[in-house]
Amino acid sequence: MARLTRSESQARTRADLIATARDLFLAEGYAKTSLERVAEEAGYSKGAVYSNFRTKKELGLEVLGLIHTTKFQEVTDLIAAGDTLEDQLERFQEWAERTIGDVGWTLLEFEFATVARDDPELQAALVSSLGMVRGAVAAQVQSLADTVGIPLPMSAQDAASAILSMGIGLGMQRAIDPSIPAGLITDALRLLVTFGDGPPRRAQPSAVTP
Amino acid sequence: MARLTRSESQARTRADLIATARDLFLAEGYAKTSLERVAEEAGYSKGAVYSNFRTKKELGLEVLGLIHTTKFQEVTDLIAAGDTLEDQLERFQEWAERTIGDVGWTLLEFEFATVARDDPELQAALVSSLGMVRGAVAAQVQSLADTVGIPLPMSAQDAASAILSMGIGLGMQRAIDPSIPAGLITDALRLLVTFGDGPPRRAQPSAVTP
Repeated sequence: MARLTRSESQARTRADLIATARDLFLAEGYAKTSLERVAEEAGYSKGAVYSNFRTKKELGLEVLGLIHTTKFQEVTDLIAAGDTLEDQLERFQEWAERTIGDVGWTLLEFEFATVARDDPELQAALVSSLGMVRGAVAAQVQSLADTVGIPLPMSAQDAASAILSMGIGLGMQRAIDPSIPAGLITDALRLLVTFGDGPPRRAQPSAVTP
Repeated sequence: MARLTRSESQARTRADLIATARDLFLAEGYAKTSLERVAEEAGYSKGAVYSNFRTKKELGLEVLGLIHTTKFQEVTDLIAAGDTLEDQLERFQEWAERTIGDVGWTLLEFEFATVARDDPELQAALVSSLGMVRGAVAAQVQSLADTVGIPLPMSAQDAASAILSMGIGLGMQRAIDPSIPAGLITDALRLLVTFGDGPPRRAQPSAVTP
């Protein structure tokens, strides 16, 4: 293997630490995982952690960023892989059933929001992260709407807020009670992107169909 | 004032402790509030707390129950006070703007879900509490639908799951970023209970209007 340059080696150390912290935060929670434990599991010194992250909160933000990027990539890929809206929604539904309400992920998000309660700097970082999440969901909703070719019944940002709210709330409930089905969010997505076609339960008289 | 019987006095002590714990949990969080602090603030001995609640978790569940009952009563009252659907939705919207995403309440729910992570007994209690919450929301959605007189486009339970998910998710986002408007959930409610009337943006040709 080719020797890494100093900056490549530094980037790899940082990426290793973030990935290890992610696994520990997801498995055991944020508060219960010490920076010492992250260093030990990743096979680095404590000094390596402290020279990369000023605080545990900074590492926490990096971990949330990595998780969000991974989840969005999964959804973007499955939307791109689907040929028709129903195909895309079916792939999304499989993902939702597997992912929304994942205990480790859901509780990490909630725990981190609790940690930010008395920390205006972390609050600001979460506001910015939430804005990015909403923007990414808006792009995905728009992409589905483009497949259908009907204009959304509201702005893509508002549609994203609705879907994101439902996803977060469903995640909270499924983290407590995994028997709750995830199909709700897929139904809401379908409703949103086909809304301009009228409600599915109300057949249009054929005489007025264009 | 008439003298309280022993059982009345016991019930009052218990209610005092739950109300004091609620105020402290909402203001400072669950983990940060000790049972000693609850006893002190309520003006009772530590013994009074321990003879009423086996554990802090038991007190926590009572507090969540009290909060849910209070919130549902508020919504039930405002729905009953409205004459028309628009009047009811306007009252609901004021309530939602003031209540959904209240930092103390939202973070207490999330903190408690995190606490239950490794505690199957508390998990089971939360599943049961969530079921009651969903049932109460279903009754409120049905009550709005009855005002309109159009059948809901799905079961009241599914409609309640959708609205509850949106409320929880919106609460999480507004607890982080209070600038996010709460109107989304009122719009979703309006859409649900008027859905059978067809989408508002699509005028029906008058020739086929019944």
